[in-house]
Amino acid sequence: MSEALIIMAHGSRSETANDEFRLLVERVAEAGEDYVAVLPCFLELARPSLMEALQQIEHQPVARVRVYPLFFNSGKHVARDIPAQVQEARQRHPHLDIRLLDYFGTAEGLAGLVGRHIEAQRDS
Amino acid sequence: MSEALIIMAHGSRSETANDEFRLLVERVAEAGEDYVAVLPCFLELARPSLMEALQQIEHQPVARVRVYPLFFNSGKHVARDIPAQVQEARQRHPHLDIRLLDYFGTAEGLAGLVGRHIEAQRDS
Repeated sequence: MSEALIIMAHGSRSETANDEFRLLVERVAEAGEDYVAVLPCFLELARPSLMEALQQIEHQPVARVRVYPLFFNSGKHVARDIPAQVQEARQRHPHLDIRLLDYFGTAEGLAGLVGRHIEAQRDS
Repeated sequence: MSEALIIMAHGSRSETANDEFRLLVERVAEAGEDYVAVLPCFLELARPSLMEALQQIEHQPVARVRVYPLFFNSGKHVARDIPAQVQEARQRHPHLDIRLLDYFGTAEGLAGLVGRHIEAQRDS
């Protein structure tokens, strides 16, 4: 099935920060599954938005889009703002099957990664 | 050595989100190293602040404190606000060796964890 993956970050006024996120998305893409496209987008403060990311793939053979929020916690953005943007995207692109995935903070292994990262910096 | 670990999140107006972070910190503590204390704190919008977390341990036998920013990217918070708070903490607690660790976004294995989390949600 022709599937695209869009990973969404909050977005920052710092392009250094936004570029770090774009690089992370590239790494996820390389590790990767057979998506037609793996794209970054931002909730606010930076571009592309989710709508703009969807425009980037509108001439590609994509039937299904998965949207992954790279957020730690289910605050207002995860609970309300992102579902609202996804709902708007579905209305604009009714031919696409757009699915909102669980946000990053629910990942199995997050505490382990944090612990290892802290440990790796011990006495360094 | 008597060492404390303070993990700092951005902080949210949603206490649900803040509680998720506190739970993550508990999990890191359980996985854990032999710290005298492992504490959460927030950059803004929630409590305790870094200063308040340091007050919580001021009567404990702590010589060294490590502060770990749970942030994805090196935007203004990581580049300026957190180092400024740590610097202020050093001035208020000159007897403590307070070390600011690299932020979460620099963790080896982050892209892999994101990829696995997305994959685990495939067709579920």
